[in-house]
Amino acid sequence: MFSSSYAAAMFLKVNNFPQDKKVYAVGEDGILEEMALAGFTCLGGTKDADKKMQLKPGFKFEHDKSVGAVVVGLDQYINYYKIQYATLCIRENPGCLFIATNRDAVGHLTDLQEWPGAGSMVAAVCGSTQKEPIVVGKPSTFMMDFLLERFEIATSRMCMVGDRLDTDILFGQNAGCKTLLVLSGVTTLPVLQDPANNIHPDYYTNRMSDIIDLLEL
Amino acid sequence: MFSSSYAAAMFLKVNNFPQDKKVYAVGEDGILEEMALAGFTCLGGTKDADKKMQLKPGFKFEHDKSVGAVVVGLDQYINYYKIQYATLCIRENPGCLFIATNRDAVGHLTDLQEWPGAGSMVAAVCGSTQKEPIVVGKPSTFMMDFLLERFEIATSRMCMVGDRLDTDILFGQNAGCKTLLVLSGVTTLPVLQDPANNIHPDYYTNRMSDIIDLLEL
Repeated sequence: MFSSSYAAAMFLKVNNFPQDKKVYAVGEDGILEEMALAGFTCLGGTKDADKKMQLKPGFKFEHDKSVGAVVVGLDQYINYYKIQYATLCIRENPGCLFIATNRDAVGHLTDLQEWPGAGSMVAAVCGSTQKEPIVVGKPSTFMMDFLLERFEIATSRMCMVGDRLDTDILFGQNAGCKTLLVLSGVTTLPVLQDPANNIHPDYYTNRMSDIIDLLEL
Repeated sequence: MFSSSYAAAMFLKVNNFPQDKKVYAVGEDGILEEMALAGFTCLGGTKDADKKMQLKPGFKFEHDKSVGAVVVGLDQYINYYKIQYATLCIRENPGCLFIATNRDAVGHLTDLQEWPGAGSMVAAVCGSTQKEPIVVGKPSTFMMDFLLERFEIATSRMCMVGDRLDTDILFGQNAGCKTLLVLSGVTTLPVLQDPANNIHPDYYTNRMSDIIDLLEL
């Protein structure tokens, strides 16, 4: 299973991101973990969750000049410190990449309501840098292209897993993948089975954990 | 002197914002003060600076259904709690207004560097709501129109104060106002006097405090 954080790490690999450069993450543990697995030094993330600064005359925010990529994803610990850190790297470090894991407006982070998604954090950094990111997750096909090229896995053998018919499942179908709808998120069984719905996944399941059982068959 | 926070309060006044509705602020004390002066009940702002929540199954974020306007400005205490509060009001409270004091990407909040401006916070809320705000400050002419209509002050008698030639001063000139450049911010005297510069304010001064002396003459 491949996440959009993994896509961000693979994007850096494919583009020969230098080992002496660092990554700054506005995001959570998924990004930090994928960067570590890929062998990159990653700053920020949850480590900067409680950082503050005082805006007063003479105060200068110092950032690491060796940061060569900023990766932005969903971050429930977003703060002004991280936005400024990302902004300084993107604006002042020559050639610094600005990568978004995805631009989802909201996500179903609890079972009762929608919560601001990575699109909110990405937009905050776009707002201060006035630059647009490279998007490596949905709806970019970077991941499919990468898996096809590196592992020779045809898209017809890939499966897009998601909880939304009109984004996840439609995107997977358009990319030529198999699709699996998880019903514990946004889309409910009545919506899926409604005669008005014309987006049909190849598979659907009640819970994410069912996928593990499926894979073990 | 009128700020963009004042513009936000006056926008609500002009549009007969009901007294039984509340305002939610993603911003700092300026917005809270202007809302209080205008007689509106304002939630959020610095009062929500340290608020957190736990994203776990069964957790529901409750927001005040009587919030009828969300005002977003520069907020160095931006956090996920405030973004979610603003998002829920805008997405779920029928008719709720989404107002931006301005969309400046960055501001010269300390004398040594640029810092993320209101444009960053506004973008974060746009990112999660997928809605565009009503902008009441620069570059909207709402404020000039309001002062002209309410106090019969011609734009030629207004003075736009700012620290940037290509945004503040150019905007003021285009709106038909007098313009005053403050040199303690982004634009330096050499830049102003460079023969390549073709934007010339009516007045310029070294420090904001000089304006007070000017007004007392």
